[in-house]
Amino acid sequence: MTVPDAGSRFPAREWEAFIGRALIAVGMPESDARSVAHLMTLADLRGADGHGIFRLPQYVRRIRAGGINLQPQIQVVTESGAAALVDGDNGMGHLVMRFAAQVAITKAEAAGVGWVGVRRSNHAGPAALYAMMPLERDMIGVYLAVGNANHMAPWGGTEKLLSTNPIAVAVPALEEPAVVLDMATSVVAYGRVKLAAQRGEQMPDGWMLDYRGRPLTDPARAEDGILLPIGGYKGYGLSLVFGLLAGILNGAACGRSTVDFNKDDVMPTNTGHVIVALKIDTFTPLKSFKGAVDGFIKDIRSSPKMEGVDRIGIPGERSHATLLDRRANGIPMPRALQASLRRLAGELGIEFV
Amino acid sequence: MTVPDAGSRFPAREWEAFIGRALIAVGMPESDARSVAHLMTLADLRGADGHGIFRLPQYVRRIRAGGINLQPQIQVVTESGAAALVDGDNGMGHLVMRFAAQVAITKAEAAGVGWVGVRRSNHAGPAALYAMMPLERDMIGVYLAVGNANHMAPWGGTEKLLSTNPIAVAVPALEEPAVVLDMATSVVAYGRVKLAAQRGEQMPDGWMLDYRGRPLTDPARAEDGILLPIGGYKGYGLSLVFGLLAGILNGAACGRSTVDFNKDDVMPTNTGHVIVALKIDTFTPLKSFKGAVDGFIKDIRSSPKMEGVDRIGIPGERSHATLLDRRANGIPMPRALQASLRRLAGELGIEFV
Repeated sequence: MTVPDAGSRFPAREWEAFIGRALIAVGMPESDARSVAHLMTLADLRGADGHGIFRLPQYVRRIRAGGINLQPQIQVVTESGAAALVDGDNGMGHLVMRFAAQVAITKAEAAGVGWVGVRRSNHAGPAALYAMMPLERDMIGVYLAVGNANHMAPWGGTEKLLSTNPIAVAVPALEEPAVVLDMATSVVAYGRVKLAAQRGEQMPDGWMLDYRGRPLTDPARAEDGILLPIGGYKGYGLSLVFGLLAGILNGAACGRSTVDFNKDDVMPTNTGHVIVALKIDTFTPLKSFKGAVDGFIKDIRSSPKMEGVDRIGIPGERSHATLLDRRANGIPMPRALQASLRRLAGELGIEFV
Repeated sequence: MTVPDAGSRFPAREWEAFIGRALIAVGMPESDARSVAHLMTLADLRGADGHGIFRLPQYVRRIRAGGINLQPQIQVVTESGAAALVDGDNGMGHLVMRFAAQVAITKAEAAGVGWVGVRRSNHAGPAALYAMMPLERDMIGVYLAVGNANHMAPWGGTEKLLSTNPIAVAVPALEEPAVVLDMATSVVAYGRVKLAAQRGEQMPDGWMLDYRGRPLTDPARAEDGILLPIGGYKGYGLSLVFGLLAGILNGAACGRSTVDFNKDDVMPTNTGHVIVALKIDTFTPLKSFKGAVDGFIKDIRSSPKMEGVDRIGIPGERSHATLLDRRANGIPMPRALQASLRRLAGELGIEFV
C-alpha cells in the first residue's frame, strides 16, 4: 500500500473512465473497453498495482501493433457437461477470462463444478480477479495461468523454460472478507525485481540466481538471472504442473512457445488459463460453510503470535482493506506513472484522469 | 532410495501378503485387507517409505483400539452431475479414497471433470497414489488432503493450526513416465524430522522454528517447534486454502478439530480429502496432449544445467525409477523396521514376510 513517490489520489470512477477512453481511442469497441477498464481498475483498487493501469501503455502499444484482436470471436470450442475449452481468438485477456468465468459458473450451477480451460488469450491482470468471480454466486473459484514471460528455470537448470505460473483460490466467508490467495510460484513476482531496479535498491539473497547458480542481488542484471521458485524443487513442480494444466492441456503456450509480451508486441501470446467454479452447497449447506470459514479465520487471527508480530494475516485481507480505502479515498498514482500516462493521453488525444 | 541401515530386500508379493495377513488378523474383511495391502505396497514400491508398511504397526494399533471402522458404509452422500461428497464412515483411508477416486473418474467420464470431496476418512498413505488413479483411464488427477497432525502455524503465529496439507497432481505422458507431483506445503515433510531424530542428526536452518521464531535444529525438540511453510506466507496460504477445500468444505476436520493420529488411537480423525479427475480429450485430443507433455519433458531434461548439477529431474521420475527397481529387485526394509514388524507378526500370531 506504500507508494514510493506518492503522487495524487484519483477517484476510481475517473480512473476507470480514463482507461476506457484510452482503449476506445485505439479502436476497442465501447462496451469491451468499459469491461476491461472496470477490471483493470478493480486490480488497482485491490492494490495489485503492477496489474492495473500500470499496464495500459503496454496494452495500447500491443493493440496499435496489431498484437491484440479487437473484434475477437470468444467462444466455447469443445465442451462436456462440466468442462469446456474456450478459445479467446487473441482478444484482450480480461474479456476472454470474464467469458470463461461465466461459462465455469454456469456449468457449476448445473453440475456442481465447472472446469474451463482457455487458449489464445492474453495477459488478463491479477489472478485474483477471476478466482473471485464465482464468489458473486456463492461459489469457490480456482484460477491457474501460464505467465506471459519465462523468468524461472527447471530446478537445477539455467534455461528460462517456466513462467512464475500463478494460482488463485477464492473462498467466501460469512462476515469476514472472502479468503483470496493469489500467488506466483516464485519467491517474489518479477514486478518486485523491476521495482527494486527502478528504486536503485539491491535485492536480498534468495530472490534470484545467476546462470552459474550464484545469488544475484543487482536488479539491473535481472535479465541474466532466474527467479527462484518457492520451496526449491516444489515451486518448480507447481509451476510445471500449472503449465501443463493451463497451457499444454488447452493447446496454449508453455515452455519454449511462451511469448515474452514485454519484448514482443505483435506475436499472439496464446495465453492459457484455467478457471474452476465449485458450487458449495453440493458439499455443505452454504451458510454453515461460510460460518465455518469465519470460525477458522477467527481461530487463526486470535492465535498466539511470534515475538515482534503485530497481526496474523489471512490471504486477501490486505487487498480487501486496500479496496475499502481506495474506494473511499481514491487510488494513489506514483508521479512517474502519472507522467507516463499523461504522455499517453497526449498521444491518444484524450483527456487525462 | 538410500536405506540408512540397509537390511534385506523383500519381493513385493510377499510384502503385500504380509500386510494383508496382519490386517486380516485384526479383523479386516479379506477383500478390504487385500486392497489396503496392495496400496500400501504400491507406496513402498514407489519409495514413499514413510507411508507404506512403516505405518502398519500404527494402523494395527488404531484398529485394535477401535479407532477405525472395519465395516464402513462408504457412500456418496450428496452429489450433482460432476461433483460429489463421499462419507467414509471412519473406514481405512485407502478404501475410502479408492472409492472416491472411482466416483471422480465415473463423473469425469460423463461430464469431463469430476470433483469429489471426502469426509470421515482416515490416513490414506501418499497423495500420489490417488492422484494417479485417473491415469489408468487416461485422465489427469488432482488430490488435496488435510493432514492427520498439525505441524505448521499461520505465518507469524506459533499455534499449530495447520497441517502440512499436501497436493498431488498426476498428468499422463506418451513414452515418458507420467508427471506426478506429490508435495507437502511445508519445506520438508515431518517424516524427515523424525528420520533426523532417529539418526541423531541435526536439521539444517530453514526447516523449523521454535515458538519464539528462532531456528530449531535439534530434531529431539521438534515437539516444541513448527515446520516452516514453503515460500513463507505463500505456503501458509496454500495450506490454508487446501484445508478449506479438503477439510471445511467437506465437513471434515481442519485447524483445532484436527486429531493428531500419532497420539490418539481412538478418536475418529474425520480426515478430509479431495480428488479431481479431468478427462483430457474434452480439451485436446489425447495422443497429441501426451506427445506435447513428452516434448515439454524432453525440453526440460535437455536444457542447460547449473554447475554441479548432473540431471534435471521431472516430478515423479525418481519414484517411477524406484518402482521399476523395487519391482525387479525387491523392496528394502531397514533393520529397525524389520525388527518392529517381526514383533508385530509375533503379537498377531502370523508369519512374517
